[in-house]
Amino acid sequence: MPADDVLLKKMAQKLRRHCLESTAEAASGHPTTCMSCAELVSVLFFDEMHFDPADPSGTDADVFVLSKGHAAPILWAALKEAGAIREDLLSLRRFDSPLEGHPTFRSPWVRVATGSLGQGLSSSAGMALGRRLNGSQGRIYTLLGDGEMAEGSVWEAAAFASFHALDNLCAIVDVNRLGQSGPTMYQHDTGVYEARLKAFGWDVAVVDGHDVAAVRAAFGRARGARGRPFALVARTLKGKGVSFLEDKDGWHGKPVKKGEELAKAVAELGDTGVSIRVEARRYSPSPARAASRLTLTPGYDLGQEVATREAYGTALAKLARTSPEVIAVDGDTKNSTFSERIKEVGPERHVEAYIAEQTLAGVALGLATEGKIPFASTFACFLSRAYDFVRMAGYSNPPHLVFCGSHSGVSIGEDGPSQMGLEDLAMFRAVTAATVLYPSDGVSGERLVEAAAQTEGIVYIRTSRPKTPVLYSNEEYFPIGQSKTLRAGAKDAVTVVAAGVTLHEALKAHDVLAKEGIAIRVIDLYSVKPLDVETLRKAAAETRAIVSVEDHSVCGGIGEAVAAAVAGRTRVEILGVRELPRSGKPAELMKAYGIDATAIVEAVRRLL
Amino acid sequence: MPADDVLLKKMAQKLRRHCLESTAEAASGHPTTCMSCAELVSVLFFDEMHFDPADPSGTDADVFVLSKGHAAPILWAALKEAGAIREDLLSLRRFDSPLEGHPTFRSPWVRVATGSLGQGLSSSAGMALGRRLNGSQGRIYTLLGDGEMAEGSVWEAAAFASFHALDNLCAIVDVNRLGQSGPTMYQHDTGVYEARLKAFGWDVAVVDGHDVAAVRAAFGRARGARGRPFALVARTLKGKGVSFLEDKDGWHGKPVKKGEELAKAVAELGDTGVSIRVEARRYSPSPARAASRLTLTPGYDLGQEVATREAYGTALAKLARTSPEVIAVDGDTKNSTFSERIKEVGPERHVEAYIAEQTLAGVALGLATEGKIPFASTFACFLSRAYDFVRMAGYSNPPHLVFCGSHSGVSIGEDGPSQMGLEDLAMFRAVTAATVLYPSDGVSGERLVEAAAQTEGIVYIRTSRPKTPVLYSNEEYFPIGQSKTLRAGAKDAVTVVAAGVTLHEALKAHDVLAKEGIAIRVIDLYSVKPLDVETLRKAAAETRAIVSVEDHSVCGGIGEAVAAAVAGRTRVEILGVRELPRSGKPAELMKAYGIDATAIVEAVRRLL
Repeated sequence: MPADDVLLKKMAQKLRRHCLESTAEAASGHPTTCMSCAELVSVLFFDEMHFDPADPSGTDADVFVLSKGHAAPILWAALKEAGAIREDLLSLRRFDSPLEGHPTFRSPWVRVATGSLGQGLSSSAGMALGRRLNGSQGRIYTLLGDGEMAEGSVWEAAAFASFHALDNLCAIVDVNRLGQSGPTMYQHDTGVYEARLKAFGWDVAVVDGHDVAAVRAAFGRARGARGRPFALVARTLKGKGVSFLEDKDGWHGKPVKKGEELAKAVAELGDTGVSIRVEARRYSPSPARAASRLTLTPGYDLGQEVATREAYGTALAKLARTSPEVIAVDGDTKNSTFSERIKEVGPERHVEAYIAEQTLAGVALGLATEGKIPFASTFACFLSRAYDFVRMAGYSNPPHLVFCGSHSGVSIGEDGPSQMGLEDLAMFRAVTAATVLYPSDGVSGERLVEAAAQTEGIVYIRTSRPKTPVLYSNEEYFPIGQSKTLRAGAKDAVTVVAAGVTLHEALKAHDVLAKEGIAIRVIDLYSVKPLDVETLRKAAAETRAIVSVEDHSVCGGIGEAVAAAVAGRTRVEILGVRELPRSGKPAELMKAYGIDATAIVEAVRRLL
Repeated sequence: MPADDVLLKKMAQKLRRHCLESTAEAASGHPTTCMSCAELVSVLFFDEMHFDPADPSGTDADVFVLSKGHAAPILWAALKEAGAIREDLLSLRRFDSPLEGHPTFRSPWVRVATGSLGQGLSSSAGMALGRRLNGSQGRIYTLLGDGEMAEGSVWEAAAFASFHALDNLCAIVDVNRLGQSGPTMYQHDTGVYEARLKAFGWDVAVVDGHDVAAVRAAFGRARGARGRPFALVARTLKGKGVSFLEDKDGWHGKPVKKGEELAKAVAELGDTGVSIRVEARRYSPSPARAASRLTLTPGYDLGQEVATREAYGTALAKLARTSPEVIAVDGDTKNSTFSERIKEVGPERHVEAYIAEQTLAGVALGLATEGKIPFASTFACFLSRAYDFVRMAGYSNPPHLVFCGSHSGVSIGEDGPSQMGLEDLAMFRAVTAATVLYPSDGVSGERLVEAAAQTEGIVYIRTSRPKTPVLYSNEEYFPIGQSKTLRAGAKDAVTVVAAGVTLHEALKAHDVLAKEGIAIRVIDLYSVKPLDVETLRKAAAETRAIVSVEDHSVCGGIGEAVAAAVAGRTRVEILGVRELPRSGKPAELMKAYGIDATAIVEAVRRLL
């Protein structure tokens, strides 16, 4: 064996040792899934990848994505051996350590959190695409497990990567045969993965994943790939290197015991005294980026009829003109979400993810890690398809990542319930890291797109299908965490809290009640999260009760948020969708499910 | 052309006419996507499928699943022409009609709601598997669009179907080239679909989807398939049959206008005066099923330490012994969710969906339509992967469908945030049709599995990783919509509402406070939805304030449900997870995120 290969093989054994020791110390974790990929990781970090151990940003360097996130211990071990991190590997999984059980943003070397399987490839594809768009060099290496190849999201991403000819993307499939609770579907039949990846447009090399020379050669082939992504399908053994773990069922997510068992395992690994110095290797610098300005000015007349989804598209195009980072991703709904407007600025500013919402979300996250400000849009209901990706994006802590769900609620009308987003507010509110915005007219629509672009982390914008009249002047701002009180007076009997289409119903209800001499306060809760608790509590103190009204399920949306904010201070009646809706005209449906002006008037009367 | 083929071709034209007319009348809908599949639907309903137009149950007959749900008008048209429904086709999309914009349970001929693309194949695979398990004949025919082939869920389902050798399943891919907002990824390149389906283990025929004879021949081949599922990849033209619609972009989801435009389109279809009588054709009757008893008795000692996830598995096995309908589906987590316990009753009682949660949910829904009582389990967090499937299952109104999410909350410990279900209560509560249950000990764990099996529609059971002491006697029942008041007295100062792991913290807090002379009421909110509003309001009236505490995001969970229920009646302080959690020991994490006994004690003191 050439000297380099011997060293890399020894490093693999050393990485195995680290994983055995750190998981034994933690008394939990997944050593055996680390051991199957030890040669793959050794070759990647100590031979193949160009990177600077002093710079976790990955700029002008290769990037590693551990899609099989439960192998976190070997990532930490490789980073430590490469001189990239200083933490004690034995702090694995401790409350005070960034070396978490699965990779999260708490390590600067983790671009995208993993541990929910099947997510790494789509974000990697987003990174690869982002690099091409930015004119940046550096390849993306993504390590997947064979178990996660059952996730449809992997195949969505595979199709996306070949469709976009991402030859700067290399996937490595660690086919170690054993899942959590038994053998995988195809065990060691690497031919299945090879045939499928080829059918999905990839170049493929099948290798013995423990043969350092073969792995190095395959990476050489991958580096030469042109016009399509490359996959190494590596046959490996789970627990490789230790006789009582190797290829044995029953050892998933199970560390060896400290003491005798650990000593026995480590002894089998032989000489692990090697160390390999990783020199900083970088590609030529990326082109400088143009200056960016993330502001816009709406241009509407008061009373003008415009759908907030259309305002979204208009605003996106405006921002894109002054900020090269702004990019749209859509799932074949661009003419409904209006994200297609950004194409006016340049066709490359719009990424078509086709009908594959997990890829939509994953690619957007990957783009975000490359400095883009991605706006990922589809119908609100179809974002439920990507909910796990949204959740995990939270643990990735991206600089900027905006989701937009259009066609929210029963107000979409005839298409029927499958197309109505009735759970999206609950979904995004429950994600701890997310900001949730809900415009009601053209001006707030554009201003909230502007605010979203300027907001760190994950932002959700909920837009509506119907046209609604412009309520605000073009100079109005909509700071996140605040609200707008549209109708107020000293004699307000009840406060009505609404957003989006129901705000217009609340204003109608105000006028109806005013004729009867009943004054109500009307609040536009455009910032659903964070909530303007102060204004709501003031209203609770100054009026007799609060009616909230939303085109959404009564669970997890605006009503419950308001009820929690003013609990104990005043009565709250929540109007929202309580049953399975059906097809019909928008007005019919808003009436049937009790969220129109008439329903608000009746609720107010009940509370007087 | 043989006389039969001529008739079927004419019927295709007639179906096209119906779709043009019904969508023109509704002034919305998708005629062109119906027109591409008119020959396919004509051959299926009037030649290939064995069914009884008088019996929508599909028992001992072939079943049709319209995965491309936006083609609903042609389903309604075919059913009408076959004599299966009596509704006026021109009532399409009207509020008073079961002929909704996309198929829902409001038509008895719809087993699974569609309209969110990519879901039909997994539920069809569940039906096909259910038939094999039940010893029932009758094939499943599933019509997909080419656009939806981008959904990963289709490939998950394709892998599942070939892995389980479901040769009673036939997929038809209508490759009409055009998506909503532009051409599909592969346009008319049927070879891509052929290669991928073959790589995924299917037999495939590529046909001209407008050639009745070719389509009939392909269905003949499909009927002869043994050991693997069969797919027809049909090259078609969107808008086929009308010159100004055919293969034209810009006509997705757009009806022609009533009057001149409609007349012109209809005229191009030629003679549509045909009618074909569908005779009832059935297969030999399915074997009789054994009697079923859905009751159990827990067998725990008070104080015994058992995790609710383990009680779930134990209960599942008990129910399976006395009910042949009970079946478990899991996503390679069966040794963690404990669903594997059901295998003690028989290996065929457990379906392994591997790491493919959308398939997990879809297959379970399909099994439900075949009379099974499916329990679909994985980690609570990974059900977020299947959220769109859960949502759509609601619109399918299955007789019984139970989801179980284990490893909920930060109390899982060291694995870290990617494995913590912190959004699942929000997710399931927001689904209008769902019941949400949350046991805290072994007895309630088993009793709630029993209750779930007896409950119609969608039920979610949330289980926990840690062991907790048994609180209830084996004779205790847990009716849905009620709660248990575990500690109560005339002098209760504050009420603490908890469930699952936090209930045990509440009981500890009770004891700590009791020593200080402070009495608190403790309520076990095991039925999160429907909620025991009466008991909560009574507590609100009798105590000074309510503290809710949950191992879940503060948004959309127990706290907000309680706040909404008692709004205006008393103060509510919500304890739950408010920030991105991390790895650590369970007790460390419950303390760090403010949901342990100490946090409850402090909250109570604040409210005194």
